[in-house]
Amino acid sequence: MLKEMGVQARQASACLARLMSKEKNRALFLIAEALEREQSAILLANQQDLEAAQQLSYSAALLDRLRLTPQRLALLQQALQQVIQLPDPLEQPAEYQILPSGLQLKRQRVPIGVIGVIYELRPNVTLDVSALCLKSGNAVILRGGKETQQTNHCLVTIIHQALIRSQIDPTAVQLIPSADRRWVNELICADKSVDLLITRGGEALHRLCREQATVPVINGGAGICHLFVDASADLERSLPLILNAKVQQPSTCNALETLLVHRSIASKLLPLLSEALALNEVTLHADPAAITWLSRGPAKVRPLCKEELDQEWLSLDLNLCLVEDIDEAIMHIHHHSSGHSEGILTQDASHAQRFTQEIDAAVVYVNASSRFPDGGQFGIGAEMAISTQKLHVRGPMGLESLTTVKWIAEGDYLVRN
Amino acid sequence: MLKEMGVQARQASACLARLMSKEKNRALFLIAEALEREQSAILLANQQDLEAAQQLSYSAALLDRLRLTPQRLALLQQALQQVIQLPDPLEQPAEYQILPSGLQLKRQRVPIGVIGVIYELRPNVTLDVSALCLKSGNAVILRGGKETQQTNHCLVTIIHQALIRSQIDPTAVQLIPSADRRWVNELICADKSVDLLITRGGEALHRLCREQATVPVINGGAGICHLFVDASADLERSLPLILNAKVQQPSTCNALETLLVHRSIASKLLPLLSEALALNEVTLHADPAAITWLSRGPAKVRPLCKEELDQEWLSLDLNLCLVEDIDEAIMHIHHHSSGHSEGILTQDASHAQRFTQEIDAAVVYVNASSRFPDGGQFGIGAEMAISTQKLHVRGPMGLESLTTVKWIAEGDYLVRN
Repeated sequence: MLKEMGVQARQASACLARLMSKEKNRALFLIAEALEREQSAILLANQQDLEAAQQLSYSAALLDRLRLTPQRLALLQQALQQVIQLPDPLEQPAEYQILPSGLQLKRQRVPIGVIGVIYELRPNVTLDVSALCLKSGNAVILRGGKETQQTNHCLVTIIHQALIRSQIDPTAVQLIPSADRRWVNELICADKSVDLLITRGGEALHRLCREQATVPVINGGAGICHLFVDASADLERSLPLILNAKVQQPSTCNALETLLVHRSIASKLLPLLSEALALNEVTLHADPAAITWLSRGPAKVRPLCKEELDQEWLSLDLNLCLVEDIDEAIMHIHHHSSGHSEGILTQDASHAQRFTQEIDAAVVYVNASSRFPDGGQFGIGAEMAISTQKLHVRGPMGLESLTTVKWIAEGDYLVRN
Repeated sequence: MLKEMGVQARQASACLARLMSKEKNRALFLIAEALEREQSAILLANQQDLEAAQQLSYSAALLDRLRLTPQRLALLQQALQQVIQLPDPLEQPAEYQILPSGLQLKRQRVPIGVIGVIYELRPNVTLDVSALCLKSGNAVILRGGKETQQTNHCLVTIIHQALIRSQIDPTAVQLIPSADRRWVNELICADKSVDLLITRGGEALHRLCREQATVPVINGGAGICHLFVDASADLERSLPLILNAKVQQPSTCNALETLLVHRSIASKLLPLLSEALALNEVTLHADPAAITWLSRGPAKVRPLCKEELDQEWLSLDLNLCLVEDIDEAIMHIHHHSSGHSEGILTQDASHAQRFTQEIDAAVVYVNASSRFPDGGQFGIGAEMAISTQKLHVRGPMGLESLTTVKWIAEGDYLVRN
């Protein structure tokens, strides 16, 4: 079955590669329009998914990721409009050169071909990802979470209608059944029909792909983000930043998971932190040294288990460790980072420099909240994922990262000497 | 053991990342100098490898790949000088922007870290690859062919001496024993210590990596290159080009493996081809329809087995098939291409356009020999490999492809709204 979808996707991708920008934009426009027209159908499907998830006792954080509202649909519509506005990466002028041999060499952007995307709860990904793939001339095979089945089915039906109205092969966007795990195993090994797999999920999915995928994979979306509060940090201004990083949208990959505090400022910062976090209902998972300073504060504190340092909470939980100095902070991050976003709060320029140089992550922050890295904030428009790996693309994945190049060489019956 | 090498490589890479261009160039200069000074030691080691290979009855093509000569050493020295001349990719100016939020965002090039390279016979790869990794600030773990053990050991000793004299950690370049296959299995799964694996070898190595590697892989070097002689091709000028693509250096990945000839010109082209190939001692593996036109010619002809169409000859063997039209040629290439270099000889502009658009390969040629794609010819200097995949880099892999980016974001205790 997947094989057949792969063949269809390959055929669709050949047609997509030849479309003009305006043809692709028209399809995106029709999708955006249908989001409004079909709002009640979408929300109804989403309600069915939410009820099923509630019956399975999903956490509030998970339900939040799953939920669509009229406001969120309006944001999705805006995101589609943004994708329409973005320049078509395939219209970048090709690079030309004439080599000393006389060979005329052209290097031009082309779509990657067929992209597989595996993601979890959030149904907005279905639209974002489809729009970015279409705009960049790629066919896409989607595998969303089983919790979002009804919503995704409804959204993909809307996309298909828009594609048909735009005279584009609807198999350009295909959704595989999410109920059966076997489809995932087939998809990650479909190297004949899928050129790139993008995974937006937790560490378990990444490990599965690392160990079993034969399709090239870009991992995105797992963020164990650290923030180190150095001895010289401005404490008063640090508090709102820590809160922002943790509570603004705890279910996203760029939310803060572990706070590292320089031991020398623990006595000042931790009591203030306890109050601020208690107000925001954050549970602290603190190491023994930190607990000393927290025991009288109002925040809920639990002893930290070692394994929690490698866990992406995605909830109102925060790990807290005291460190001796910047060396220990850097070492801690080396051991536990997922390579997403790591930050330092400091007034010491040499510490800021060491931190940005030595930390090996997609984004390194100095005196700023880890909540920033996304395509919108970084000025590259909507994004496919935040790549936490080093090859092809690192950080927010925009349209260009969904393309590759082809070299075209012309001569006049030219031979190599 | 590999784990320990990985830890050392990681440490060395942190130091390499901070070196200035001139420090790296000095080390490369010392290596180039030593190639001349130590020439007799290198050739002696190479002679030992050659004798061992001869005793194992290696083919002439393989012995040619293994052999070093004073001339080839001089070319290697030139290649090192070229790498010294190349601009340091880490000195590319960073891209700055200030986002509407006030965040100061910098995107800068950084080395990838630790690169593993698995290659086969050719000992020049040991030097090329080490030089490119050093210049781009990466540590490298090399795994050459077991047939080149003595030569590689001698070359890496020379590199180590030059690194020590340049006060660079010599574990920046490490060679793993090539006698034991288990090392390969360890290396391709060393995702904790190796950031990128580059494989220069045949399809078997690629399959092994596709199925078992947990380190991200770039496959390079397997080339099943096709050339389609269209009905409108200038036959007289086609002959020297076909010869160039096949015989100039048959042991390289960009040599021609399969010739597709439009049926309508078979009666004219094939007799001429038979003569030209016979003079160059090329054996033809021809399909039944082609054999008809070849039976009276002087070239050695064998019936083509289907499996040979997926084989990289690397020798003076050439597959030959007749095709009905450009559609059949494109379809044939879709089925058998390794995504390296594919060419068409034609006078018909619309056929040239269809071919360049529809063929999915790193380099597509019109009226030019497939022998061109290498870093030197394409003007990007020495090369690590020819990437036949679509992610990160496609075609010749120059210095920039050995780097990635890091985003550095600074604010004044900036939070996201």
